[in-house]
Amino acid sequence: MSANPSLLALQSQTLLPGVKGLPLQAPLRQDQIAAQGYNVLDGRLSYPVAVLRRSTLEHNLAWMRGFAEHAGALLAPHGKTTMSPQLFQAQLDAGAWAITLATIPQLRVAHRFGVRRVLLANQPVAYADIESLAALLRDDAGFDAWVLVDSSAGAARLNEVMARTAPQRRLPVLVELGLDGGRTGARGLDAGLRLAREVAAAPQLRLAGIEGYEGLWTGADRAADLARVHALLAQMVELTRECDRAGLFDGDEILISAGGSAYFDFVADAFAALDGLSRPLKRVLRSGCYLTSDHGLYHGLQQEMRTRHGAEFRHGLQPALELWAMVQSRPEPGLALLTLGKRDASYDVELPRPLQWHRPGEAAPRPLREARIGKMNDQHAYLELPPEHPLQVGDLVAVGISHPCTTFDKWPLMLLSDDSYGVTGAINTFF
Amino acid sequence: MSANPSLLALQSQTLLPGVKGLPLQAPLRQDQIAAQGYNVLDGRLSYPVAVLRRSTLEHNLAWMRGFAEHAGALLAPHGKTTMSPQLFQAQLDAGAWAITLATIPQLRVAHRFGVRRVLLANQPVAYADIESLAALLRDDAGFDAWVLVDSSAGAARLNEVMARTAPQRRLPVLVELGLDGGRTGARGLDAGLRLAREVAAAPQLRLAGIEGYEGLWTGADRAADLARVHALLAQMVELTRECDRAGLFDGDEILISAGGSAYFDFVADAFAALDGLSRPLKRVLRSGCYLTSDHGLYHGLQQEMRTRHGAEFRHGLQPALELWAMVQSRPEPGLALLTLGKRDASYDVELPRPLQWHRPGEAAPRPLREARIGKMNDQHAYLELPPEHPLQVGDLVAVGISHPCTTFDKWPLMLLSDDSYGVTGAINTFF
Repeated sequence: MSANPSLLALQSQTLLPGVKGLPLQAPLRQDQIAAQGYNVLDGRLSYPVAVLRRSTLEHNLAWMRGFAEHAGALLAPHGKTTMSPQLFQAQLDAGAWAITLATIPQLRVAHRFGVRRVLLANQPVAYADIESLAALLRDDAGFDAWVLVDSSAGAARLNEVMARTAPQRRLPVLVELGLDGGRTGARGLDAGLRLAREVAAAPQLRLAGIEGYEGLWTGADRAADLARVHALLAQMVELTRECDRAGLFDGDEILISAGGSAYFDFVADAFAALDGLSRPLKRVLRSGCYLTSDHGLYHGLQQEMRTRHGAEFRHGLQPALELWAMVQSRPEPGLALLTLGKRDASYDVELPRPLQWHRPGEAAPRPLREARIGKMNDQHAYLELPPEHPLQVGDLVAVGISHPCTTFDKWPLMLLSDDSYGVTGAINTFF
Repeated sequence: MSANPSLLALQSQTLLPGVKGLPLQAPLRQDQIAAQGYNVLDGRLSYPVAVLRRSTLEHNLAWMRGFAEHAGALLAPHGKTTMSPQLFQAQLDAGAWAITLATIPQLRVAHRFGVRRVLLANQPVAYADIESLAALLRDDAGFDAWVLVDSSAGAARLNEVMARTAPQRRLPVLVELGLDGGRTGARGLDAGLRLAREVAAAPQLRLAGIEGYEGLWTGADRAADLARVHALLAQMVELTRECDRAGLFDGDEILISAGGSAYFDFVADAFAALDGLSRPLKRVLRSGCYLTSDHGLYHGLQQEMRTRHGAEFRHGLQPALELWAMVQSRPEPGLALLTLGKRDASYDVELPRPLQWHRPGEAAPRPLREARIGKMNDQHAYLELPPEHPLQVGDLVAVGISHPCTTFDKWPLMLLSDDSYGVTGAINTFF
């Protein structure tokens, strides 16, 4: 990773005993972690730990870069997934065009750590938020931000605050399009076009493009989900054409953006087919979960992409994040309690999946497919396993998670490891 | 709140733009928050915010102190709920005997901020964790800690590490008792007694008491839950008598501890009936959620206690925590999107409940009983409401939560307010 001064300062901060996942008895500079000789498997850490495998992160960064280049698209990875300045920098180093954020406090964190171009994938509505953004744009000429609008009221607020706070800059705005039953976004072409006209007419705003988010439709009815994905993408393409024909876009280029981590292939295809506009088109994908993928929801969605595309996706995104916990208790033959709970692992999509177990001192971890986590409390996981299983107090268990976003937000510090689970450093998160 | 040097340093730390819930454009010392004139209702903050009503916190502190005194019990409130040094101090100032923690990193945080007596309501198993605890006990003669064991392997690890790290101190240990189908804890009287003998025989440990946790049984089958609660408490009482008869306890007193936030009345009753031991008995309750209560699970459990006790509980624990979000979008007649999501509010027991809505500039918030949150994404809540409801973009919505533990861990900083939602300060959390 390259480093700017704020990142270097972060890397050299002093960590105090009590930071989750490090076995500290005395303060330690973060850049001294690699020199401690920590290894996840030796049982000498304070468990649970969150471990990011560096080689897999690098693979995913390179793979996604290749995908985007092949698709003629730019990446603005969603930073809300990790909220980690070091990972933002790694994404930018791997060619990302911008970092996407969900809220103004998140955008402030990104700016503080040197991110120079952001896409806010929401319409900011609180005056304090819009004022905070406008002040950044006023005071930092080299910082660029694109934001969404999905209502007249929203556009009016943006215009008003920009006029009094940063009148020398016009705010580039994407009209957000949504489907009925979806989340935010103007509903349908007519509403989108009306809103685009309002933005174009607002003196402090400039219509920079069209945005949508198709990634929420990941339910059990795959056919219905895919129909909605394609419907939204088709509407976005059509609205872009309409706005262009009506001369509403302002600026050297037109921007179109969608793409979570579930369907970025469909997004890329839909955007690739959009051409013949009056000016160059920037196609921006915003996947956040590609960086670590997971062992659950996004792994399954990757499998679907493999089925759709074959060879191109064979060596696609791999899970980079594991949590390692210790067996705290084995109170009944078929039950082990792990030092891992709702404070440590996501549980909104499904509970963590046991991957491996390891007895410190033995040669290598062994698979743990025959067990499952049946329940989690705040600080405990209930591992159900065959009564005869040799797992005992003090053994280690690795689990994979489903949904990176709701796991990252439980770890102020995550460890980086080599392929032998040697700890080579750490990253920070800011939630 | 009283303040020790580490707390004073925390209160005067500099907060940077990007901290969730404060509308910062420039750094601000935390002790200057009160001077900013913030009010949650004026719409000038960055939403969502988490707001603790100071008068309700004080009511709950006083009520619980009174309850414990009346019951002849001591309080060791579970600190894992809030992980907030300022709230730990408020609990100690209100007479708490100790602070309970779940993990060694949590215990380290409490120690760093001046807590001098802790109960670790788990058996620490990782060597790094036990070594960290032993080093504190070795280096800080005025710091006291009680820990649990629930297995021979656990007791052996504790004894071994204490022998090589802090041989001048003996670690006070509580034997943890559990029920089949429960979480940790030795299963049954015989197993508990066997383990107590092992602890008593371990040179670096001393058997200080008996522990159990009855608070997990809060399901739909209330009769079955209560039967288990009473069964565990009866076993704990019996094991205490047996250990006393066998002369296994060591020290001036015997400690018995249970009591989450669901059944502390039953716990107090069961412990009050335990007398005639060879030495004085310390009855220790460990409720964590009493401090803020909530609008969901614990509110319901408080109602049950009111039904059981009548007048004594009429003015019992009150919900002290609200989250306020802003309406970001109103894309369909029956739907509003709020700036509040899985990153902000607990969702493990149930989704947040709408309480009030408010249009900044109007006189006072209005009730919002006719709406519900149907779903949350990471950063959004889907508020379903009657199509004709006047709620619009920029309005505020207050929600109550169910389960404080999984809400506190989403807020590094929470606001303190007076009864008019004026912001009078803030507390920090360390997860």
